[in-house]
Amino acid sequence: MTILEPEAFTLDPQLEADTFPVAELELNKILICNDSRYLWCILVPRIPDLRDFHDVPAEFKALLLSELDLASAAVQKTAAAYKMNVAALGNMVEQLHIHVIARHRDDPAWPGPIWGVGDAVPYTSADAAKIASRLKAELQLL
Amino acid sequence: MTILEPEAFTLDPQLEADTFPVAELELNKILICNDSRYLWCILVPRIPDLRDFHDVPAEFKALLLSELDLASAAVQKTAAAYKMNVAALGNMVEQLHIHVIARHRDDPAWPGPIWGVGDAVPYTSADAAKIASRLKAELQLL
Repeated sequence: MTILEPEAFTLDPQLEADTFPVAELELNKILICNDSRYLWCILVPRIPDLRDFHDVPAEFKALLLSELDLASAAVQKTAAAYKMNVAALGNMVEQLHIHVIARHRDDPAWPGPIWGVGDAVPYTSADAAKIASRLKAELQLL
Repeated sequence: MTILEPEAFTLDPQLEADTFPVAELELNKILICNDSRYLWCILVPRIPDLRDFHDVPAEFKALLLSELDLASAAVQKTAAAYKMNVAALGNMVEQLHIHVIARHRDDPAWPGPIWGVGDAVPYTSADAAKIASRLKAELQLL
Protein backbone atom coordinates (compact mmCIF):
# COMPACT_ATOMS: atom_id res chain seq x y z
CA MET A 1 0.00 0.00 0.00
CA THR A 2 1.83 3.06 -1.20
CA ILE A 3 1.18 6.36 -2.93
CA LEU A 4 3.77 5.20 -5.45
CA GLU A 5 1.16 2.87 -6.92
CA PRO A 6 -1.62 5.31 -7.74
CA GLU A 7 -3.30 2.84 -10.08
CA ALA A 8 -4.51 0.94 -7.02
CA PHE A 9 -6.55 3.93 -5.85
CA THR A 10 -9.99 4.77 -7.23
CA LEU A 11 -12.09 7.69 -6.03
CA ASP A 12 -15.43 6.62 -4.59
CA PRO A 13 -18.14 7.20 -7.25
CA GLN A 14 -20.37 9.17 -4.86
CA LEU A 15 -17.52 11.55 -3.97
CA GLU A 16 -16.79 11.92 -7.66
CA ALA A 17 -20.44 12.72 -8.43
CA ASP A 18 -20.81 15.31 -5.66
CA THR A 19 -17.60 17.27 -6.26
CA PHE A 20 -15.25 18.74 -8.81
CA PRO A 21 -11.48 18.41 -8.65
CA VAL A 22 -9.18 21.26 -7.67
CA ALA A 23 -5.72 19.84 -7.19
CA GLU A 24 -3.60 16.80 -6.60
CA LEU A 25 -1.24 17.25 -3.68
CA GLU A 26 1.48 14.73 -2.95
CA LEU A 27 -0.87 12.57 -0.88
CA ASN A 28 -4.37 13.98 -1.26
CA LYS A 29 -6.84 14.79 -3.97
CA ILE A 30 -8.51 18.11 -3.21
CA LEU A 31 -12.13 18.32 -4.31
CA ILE A 32 -14.79 21.01 -3.95
CA CYS A 33 -18.32 19.92 -3.06
CA ASN A 34 -20.79 21.15 -5.63
CA ASP A 35 -22.72 23.22 -3.10
CA SER A 36 -22.14 26.94 -3.48
CA ARG A 37 -23.68 27.73 -0.08
CA TYR A 38 -20.30 26.98 1.52
CA LEU A 39 -16.70 26.74 0.42
CA TRP A 40 -16.57 23.06 1.25
CA CYS A 41 -13.48 21.07 0.29
CA ILE A 42 -12.80 17.41 0.65
CA LEU A 43 -9.37 15.83 0.92
CA VAL A 44 -9.00 12.21 -0.12
CA PRO A 45 -5.68 10.47 0.54
CA ARG A 46 -4.78 8.45 -2.56
CA ILE A 47 -4.19 5.28 -0.59
CA PRO A 48 -6.51 2.35 -1.22
CA ASP A 49 -8.74 0.84 1.45
CA LEU A 50 -8.60 3.55 4.13
CA ARG A 51 -11.77 3.97 6.14
CA ASP A 52 -11.05 5.72 9.45
CA PHE A 53 -8.78 8.69 10.08
CA HIS A 54 -6.59 6.51 12.29
CA ASP A 55 -6.12 4.02 9.43
CA VAL A 56 -3.66 6.33 7.66
CA PRO A 57 -0.31 4.50 7.78
CA ALA A 58 2.25 6.03 10.14
CA GLU A 59 4.62 6.98 7.35
CA PHE A 60 1.99 9.25 5.78
CA LYS A 61 0.73 10.97 8.93
CA ALA A 62 3.00 14.01 8.74
CA LEU A 63 2.18 14.53 5.08
CA LEU A 64 -1.53 14.14 5.75
CA LEU A 65 -1.41 16.75 8.49
CA SER A 66 0.68 19.23 6.52
CA GLU A 67 -1.64 18.97 3.51
CA LEU A 68 -4.67 19.26 5.76
CA ASP A 69 -3.25 22.42 7.30
CA LEU A 70 -2.38 23.82 3.90
CA ALA A 71 -5.87 23.15 2.59
CA SER A 72 -7.55 24.50 5.70
CA ALA A 73 -5.56 27.74 5.61
CA ALA A 74 -6.20 28.13 1.87
CA VAL A 75 -9.94 27.55 2.25
CA GLN A 76 -10.09 29.93 5.20
CA LYS A 77 -8.36 32.67 3.26
CA THR A 78 -10.29 32.11 0.02
CA ALA A 79 -13.63 32.26 1.80
CA ALA A 80 -12.65 34.78 4.49
CA ALA A 81 -14.09 32.20 6.88
CA TYR A 82 -15.07 33.02 10.43
CA LYS A 83 -14.38 29.43 11.53
CA MET A 84 -13.06 26.29 9.89
CA ASN A 85 -14.72 22.92 10.36
CA VAL A 86 -12.55 19.85 9.80
CA ALA A 87 -14.13 16.40 9.96
CA ALA A 88 -13.67 12.79 8.96
CA LEU A 89 -17.11 11.20 9.29
CA GLY A 90 -17.61 8.67 6.51
CA ASN A 91 -20.91 7.22 7.64
CA MET A 92 -22.37 7.41 4.14
CA VAL A 93 -19.27 7.16 1.95
CA GLU A 94 -16.81 4.80 3.57
CA GLN A 95 -13.68 5.78 1.63
CA LEU A 96 -11.65 8.01 3.96
CA HIS A 97 -12.32 11.64 3.10
CA ILE A 98 -11.78 14.73 5.20
CA HIS A 99 -14.15 17.67 5.06
CA VAL A 100 -12.58 21.13 5.27
CA ILE A 101 -15.39 23.67 5.42
CA ALA A 102 -15.41 27.44 5.63
CA ARG A 103 -18.10 28.65 8.02
CA HIS A 104 -19.70 32.05 8.41
CA ARG A 105 -22.07 33.27 11.09
CA ASP A 106 -24.71 33.93 8.44
CA ASP A 107 -24.44 30.62 6.57
CA PRO A 108 -27.56 28.41 6.32
CA ALA A 109 -26.47 25.92 8.98
CA TRP A 110 -24.67 28.14 11.51
CA PRO A 111 -23.88 27.31 14.29
CA GLY A 112 -24.77 23.68 13.60
CA PRO A 113 -22.83 21.37 11.32
CA ILE A 114 -23.62 21.69 7.60
CA TRP A 115 -24.48 18.09 6.78
CA GLY A 116 -28.14 17.40 6.09
CA VAL A 117 -29.25 21.03 6.18
CA GLY A 118 -31.42 21.99 3.19
CA ASP A 119 -30.47 21.19 -0.39
CA ALA A 120 -27.19 21.78 -2.16
CA VAL A 121 -27.08 24.80 -4.47
CA PRO A 122 -24.84 23.73 -7.37
CA TYR A 123 -22.24 26.12 -8.77
CA THR A 124 -22.61 27.45 -12.30
CA SER A 125 -19.75 26.25 -14.50
CA ALA A 126 -18.27 29.74 -14.48
CA ASP A 127 -18.43 30.02 -10.68
CA ALA A 128 -16.99 26.54 -10.24
CA ALA A 129 -14.04 27.43 -12.44
CA LYS A 130 -13.57 30.72 -10.59
CA ILE A 131 -13.61 29.22 -7.09
CA ALA A 132 -11.30 26.37 -8.12
CA SER A 133 -8.89 28.87 -9.60
CA ARG A 134 -8.91 31.08 -6.50
CA LEU A 135 -8.37 28.10 -4.24
CA LYS A 136 -5.52 26.80 -6.38
CA ALA A 137 -3.89 30.21 -6.18
CA GLU A 138 -4.08 30.08 -2.38
CA LEU A 139 -2.64 26.59 -2.46
CA GLN A 140 0.07 28.08 -4.66
CA LEU A 141 -0.50 25.46 -7.30
CA LEU A 142 -1.20 27.80 -10.20
CA MET B 1 2.93 29.17 24.38
CA THR B 2 3.99 25.75 25.58
CA ILE B 3 2.58 22.68 27.24
CA LEU B 4 5.27 23.24 29.86
CA GLU B 5 3.21 26.12 31.25
CA PRO B 6 -0.09 24.36 31.95
CA GLU B 7 -1.22 27.16 34.27
CA ALA B 8 -1.87 29.30 31.19
CA PHE B 9 -4.50 26.84 29.96
CA THR B 10 -8.06 26.79 31.23
CA LEU B 11 -10.73 24.41 29.97
CA ASP B 12 -13.71 26.19 28.43
CA PRO B 13 -16.55 26.24 31.02
CA GLN B 14 -19.09 24.81 28.55
CA LEU B 15 -16.83 21.86 27.75
CA GLU B 16 -16.30 21.34 31.46
CA ALA B 17 -20.05 21.38 32.10
CA ASP B 18 -20.91 18.91 29.33
CA THR B 19 -18.24 16.31 30.02
CA PHE B 20 -16.34 14.36 32.62
CA PRO B 21 -12.59 13.84 32.59
CA VAL B 22 -10.95 10.54 31.67
CA ALA B 23 -7.25 11.16 31.29
CA GLU B 24 -4.48 13.65 30.77
CA LEU B 25 -2.22 12.68 27.91
CA GLU B 26 1.02 14.51 27.26
CA LEU B 27 -0.73 17.14 25.14
CA ASN B 28 -4.47 16.54 25.41
CA LYS B 29 -7.13 16.31 28.04
CA ILE B 30 -9.48 13.45 27.23
CA LEU B 31 -13.08 14.06 28.23
CA ILE B 32 -16.26 12.02 27.79
CA CYS B 33 -19.44 13.85 26.79
CA ASN B 34 -22.17 13.22 29.28
CA ASP B 35 -24.45 11.62 26.70
CA SER B 36 -24.72 7.87 27.09
CA ARG B 37 -26.30 7.42 23.65
CA TYR B 38 -22.79 7.41 22.15
CA LEU B 39 -19.26 6.84 23.35
CA TRP B 40 -18.31 10.40 22.54
CA CYS B 41 -14.89 11.64 23.58
CA ILE B 42 -13.40 15.08 23.25
CA LEU B 43 -9.70 15.84 23.09
CA VAL B 44 -8.56 19.29 24.15
CA PRO B 45 -4.91 20.25 23.59
CA ARG B 46 -3.67 22.02 26.73
CA ILE B 47 -2.34 24.99 24.77
CA PRO B 48 -3.99 28.36 25.34
CA ASP B 49 -5.74 30.32 22.61
CA LEU B 50 -6.13 27.64 19.94
CA ARG B 51 -9.25 27.90 17.82
CA ASP B 52 -8.84 26.04 14.53
CA PHE B 53 -7.27 22.63 13.96
CA HIS B 54 -4.58 24.25 11.82
CA ASP B 55 -3.67 26.60 14.71
CA VAL B 56 -1.84 23.81 16.53
CA PRO B 57 1.83 24.85 16.52
CA ALA B 58 4.05 22.79 14.22
CA GLU B 59 6.08 21.34 17.08
CA PHE B 60 2.97 19.72 18.57
CA LYS B 61 1.44 18.31 15.37
CA ALA B 62 2.98 14.85 15.61
CA LEU B 63 1.97 14.54 19.25
CA LEU B 64 -1.55 15.73 18.48
CA LEU B 65 -1.93 13.16 15.74
CA SER B 66 -0.50 10.29 17.75
CA GLU B 67 -2.78 11.06 20.71
CA LEU B 68 -5.74 11.44 18.37
CA ASP B 69 -5.01 8.03 16.86
CA LEU B 70 -4.56 6.49 20.29
CA ALA B 71 -7.86 7.94 21.49
CA SER B 72 -9.71 6.97 18.35
CA ALA B 73 -8.48 3.39 18.48
CA ALA B 74 -9.31 3.16 22.19
CA VAL B 75 -12.82 4.55 21.71
CA GLN B 76 -13.40 2.25 18.75
CA LYS B 77 -12.37 -0.80 20.73
CA THR B 78 -14.23 0.18 23.92
CA ALA B 79 -17.48 0.77 22.05
CA ALA B 80 -16.98 -1.91 19.37
CA ALA B 81 -17.75 0.91 16.95
CA TYR B 82 -18.80 0.31 13.38
CA LYS B 83 -17.28 3.65 12.31
CA MET B 84 -15.36 6.43 14.00
CA ASN B 85 -16.21 10.10 13.47
CA VAL B 86 -13.43 12.61 14.11
CA ALA B 87 -14.19 16.30 13.91
CA ALA B 88 -12.98 19.73 14.94
CA LEU B 89 -15.97 22.03 14.51
CA GLY B 90 -15.97 24.64 17.28
CA ASN B 91 -18.83 26.77 16.06
CA MET B 92 -20.39 26.91 19.51
CA VAL B 93 -17.38 26.48 21.79
CA GLU B 94 -14.42 28.24 20.24
CA GLN B 95 -11.64 26.59 22.27
CA LEU B 96 -10.10 23.96 19.99
CA HIS B 97 -11.57 20.57 20.82
CA ILE B 98 -11.68 17.44 18.73
CA HIS B 99 -14.64 15.10 18.81
CA VAL B 100 -13.88 11.38 18.64
CA ILE B 101 -17.17 9.54 18.40
CA ALA B 102 -18.02 5.85 18.17
CA ARG B 103 -20.83 5.27 15.70
CA HIS B 104 -23.14 2.32 15.26
CA ARG B 105 -25.63 1.63 12.51
CA ASP B 106 -28.44 1.59 15.08
CA ASP B 107 -27.49 4.76 16.96
CA PRO B 108 -30.05 7.60 17.13
CA ALA B 109 -28.36 9.78 14.50
CA TRP B 110 -27.03 7.20 12.04
CA PRO B 111 -25.99 7.83 9.27
CA GLY B 112 -26.06 11.57 9.95
CA PRO B 113 -23.73 13.40 12.30
CA ILE B 114 -24.68 13.28 15.97
CA TRP B 115 -24.76 16.98 16.79
CA GLY B 116 -28.17 18.48 17.37
CA VAL B 117 -30.05 15.18 17.24
CA GLY B 118 -32.46 14.75 20.17
CA ASP B 119 -31.48 15.31 23.77
CA ALA B 120 -28.47 14.00 25.64
CA VAL B 121 -29.08 11.05 27.94
CA PRO B 122 -26.75 11.62 30.90
CA TYR B 123 -24.79 8.72 32.38
CA THR B 124 -25.55 7.50 35.87
CA SER B 125 -22.56 8.05 38.18
CA ALA B 126 -21.88 4.32 38.18
CA ASP B 127 -22.00 4.07 34.39
CA ALA B 128 -19.79 7.15 33.99
CA ALA B 129 -17.20 5.61 36.28
CA LYS B 130 -17.41 2.31 34.42
CA ILE B 131 -17.01 3.77 30.93
CA ALA B 132 -14.16 6.04 32.03
CA SER B 133 -12.41 3.07 33.58
CA ARG B 134 -12.84 0.92 30.46
CA LEU B 135 -11.57 3.70 28.23
CA LYS B 136 -8.57 4.33 30.47
CA ALA B 137 -7.73 0.65 30.31
CA GLU B 138 -7.80 0.80 26.49
CA LEU B 139 -5.60 3.88 26.64
CA GLN B 140 -3.35 1.80 28.92
CA LEU B 141 -3.42 4.50 31.57
CA LEU B 142 -4.68 2.37 34.41
